[in-house]
Amino acid sequence: MSVTAATGFTAAGVSCGIKASGRKDIAVLACPGGAAAAGVFTTNKIVSPAVLRAMEHVKSGKVYGLVINSGNANACTGRQGEKDALAMCRRLARHIGCEPQGVLVASTGVIGHTLDMPKVNKGIDAAWAGLSCSKTAGDNFAKAIMTTDTRAKQAHRKLALAGREITIGGTAKGAGMIGPNMATTISVVTTDAPIGKTALRKALCRAVGQSLNKLTVDGHQSTNDTAFLLASGSAAGPRIPATGKDYEAFAAAMQEVYSDLARQMALDAEGVKKIFKVVVNRAASAKDAARAARAVADYDLVKCAVHGSDPNWGRIICAVGSCGVKLDASKLACKIGDVTVLRSGRPVKFDTEKASRIMSQPEHTITVDLAAGKYCDFCIGCELTRGYVRINADYHT
Amino acid sequence: MSVTAATGFTAAGVSCGIKASGRKDIAVLACPGGAAAAGVFTTNKIVSPAVLRAMEHVKSGKVYGLVINSGNANACTGRQGEKDALAMCRRLARHIGCEPQGVLVASTGVIGHTLDMPKVNKGIDAAWAGLSCSKTAGDNFAKAIMTTDTRAKQAHRKLALAGREITIGGTAKGAGMIGPNMATTISVVTTDAPIGKTALRKALCRAVGQSLNKLTVDGHQSTNDTAFLLASGSAAGPRIPATGKDYEAFAAAMQEVYSDLARQMALDAEGVKKIFKVVVNRAASAKDAARAARAVADYDLVKCAVHGSDPNWGRIICAVGSCGVKLDASKLACKIGDVTVLRSGRPVKFDTEKASRIMSQPEHTITVDLAAGKYCDFCIGCELTRGYVRINADYHT
Repeated sequence: MSVTAATGFTAAGVSCGIKASGRKDIAVLACPGGAAAAGVFTTNKIVSPAVLRAMEHVKSGKVYGLVINSGNANACTGRQGEKDALAMCRRLARHIGCEPQGVLVASTGVIGHTLDMPKVNKGIDAAWAGLSCSKTAGDNFAKAIMTTDTRAKQAHRKLALAGREITIGGTAKGAGMIGPNMATTISVVTTDAPIGKTALRKALCRAVGQSLNKLTVDGHQSTNDTAFLLASGSAAGPRIPATGKDYEAFAAAMQEVYSDLARQMALDAEGVKKIFKVVVNRAASAKDAARAARAVADYDLVKCAVHGSDPNWGRIICAVGSCGVKLDASKLACKIGDVTVLRSGRPVKFDTEKASRIMSQPEHTITVDLAAGKYCDFCIGCELTRGYVRINADYHT
Repeated sequence: MSVTAATGFTAAGVSCGIKASGRKDIAVLACPGGAAAAGVFTTNKIVSPAVLRAMEHVKSGKVYGLVINSGNANACTGRQGEKDALAMCRRLARHIGCEPQGVLVASTGVIGHTLDMPKVNKGIDAAWAGLSCSKTAGDNFAKAIMTTDTRAKQAHRKLALAGREITIGGTAKGAGMIGPNMATTISVVTTDAPIGKTALRKALCRAVGQSLNKLTVDGHQSTNDTAFLLASGSAAGPRIPATGKDYEAFAAAMQEVYSDLARQMALDAEGVKKIFKVVVNRAASAKDAARAARAVADYDLVKCAVHGSDPNWGRIICAVGSCGVKLDASKLACKIGDVTVLRSGRPVKFDTEKASRIMSQPEHTITVDLAAGKYCDFCIGCELTRGYVRINADYHT
């Protein structure tokens, strides 16, 4: 269902020839009634002009449309890139009949090439002509933002709020170059909830913080990371405020949608069939908890051990010890699934076959207790496989 | 020649059965005249008791001997591990006829198992009985500290100083779990130079800082990293002071020995046939320069591109942009070998075949100009291969 799950939106995904494969590469979303919008963007210091443009437009007021191309990131493209990002907004704005500032834009794909604008324009025109609120339209939109993804990621939730049903749905792309903060991806989520910009932004930041930002494939952000959240308000009833019970319920459902998308991304990461969650308990600070969880999830030797279903806790401990967080080495503990492998800083005799069986599942949890405080956090990582190396070594620019 | 290149030292390397393969696993070095000693150790917060013991002994005065076992890291072994590390020093000290504090100790291998001390003791005794100043003895010492290394690393230099010849020689082990600071390794370097503790320590820190600490295989430190430097003073003549022309010449030769060892380690890294040097110029601070160089050298996608000889500068730029250093995106430049691929933040039409040819060499240099200041630094990285994944996924604890 993705972006067409909620009412008030139409979408399309078409092929305009940016991708040599002939796959879909232009996604357009429209919200004729105007949507409240929020965005979260890459913190990479080298950013696509599309990101800079979207950052500006998302601040400006109501959003009436959104255009994304895949196959070309429009990054490191200088002045021409800036012109092209604006031109994409202008093209869609002309169809909609709004200001260019009412249109959001994103690009994803190879870096360093200017866009073939005649193709892009034709794509926007074709997508506009085909806009629909159908499930298929949502599917096509999801497909059109893919790059090395092997499948489209879609998620949606419904919740009852003040007597009416609210829908949240969306899609995300990303299979590599994924690392906190702001997982390297483009995602678009829509809702029919009547909600203001402030509350929407708050819910987006919280959801992204607990989902995409907890995901690491190879620990780096791209030049183009973008998460858009649009609210049409077409569900009847009172506005959802920025605090209180209704807001909490809305934000929780939002987080579920993003977590679902993040999980799908991890499982579709390049060459990956297994993902793992690293939970860090009793850290001295929130920062320490996040850092330790990420250090384990990002460590190639742990990722290789997961690939081989090998309960090699030495590598886990090594990552934790060298990432600079406070810990009590004499009280340190570690579990793989529910199997304790280290207690009071000492290895425990454990059922290695059981631990290995746990690690051979598509998903498992590694828990580390730093015995240094009261903070906890987590990070989702994925195995490192020959497939990842093959994809990223044999792929030629 | 390794540790027996310089006069005043005898060495041996024997097999005592710690390694199931039957390969050498006990290395002993003796300096009957007493040596000035310096050490640099892991900053991992979880350290082997051998490291703690060596830290204490290196401070205490003259060193008369050194014992290293491979095959077992004696890490996460609690009280028993502490006792065993001391017992190793005691055993060798009894042979030498010195205090246990006069003996240094190191362990390397699997984490979480207590040492089989009867075997270790037998090994120390056998090594003691076989001590020699021959080249073969140096070779055997180098072999006995190896773990997953496929070959022993040895280097030595001679320099003329105040009319006499000074020799510096040593060995290092390490093929994975290697990352700044303090590359994950054990190294032992000896010299016959007459030199005090302070000058020796200064020369060691500088040499390690520019060699082992500039090397990254997978970005993490082990629980056991140790670099020992021993000076017998058996070359006649005046003492080398801690400053001045003679010190500089000595320190420079020392750095050459460590850089040679570091290069050999990188080329023997797990599954690796190619290494690359990342040079970062015009950074806003020394810290920024080091961080950016390391970010590129550590980035899996760059390492895969090197493996595939693919001049994928987008990944280099991505790593630089997301590592938090100051840069001027509009003036950023990047070279692969002598081929400019990015200038003024924009891609340059370049000879991709030539760039690919450069990257297919066993060693090449990637240069990044941040255009943000006057600091520069470098880091040595290595390709990421299916072999690395195979070794580290199929290896079982």
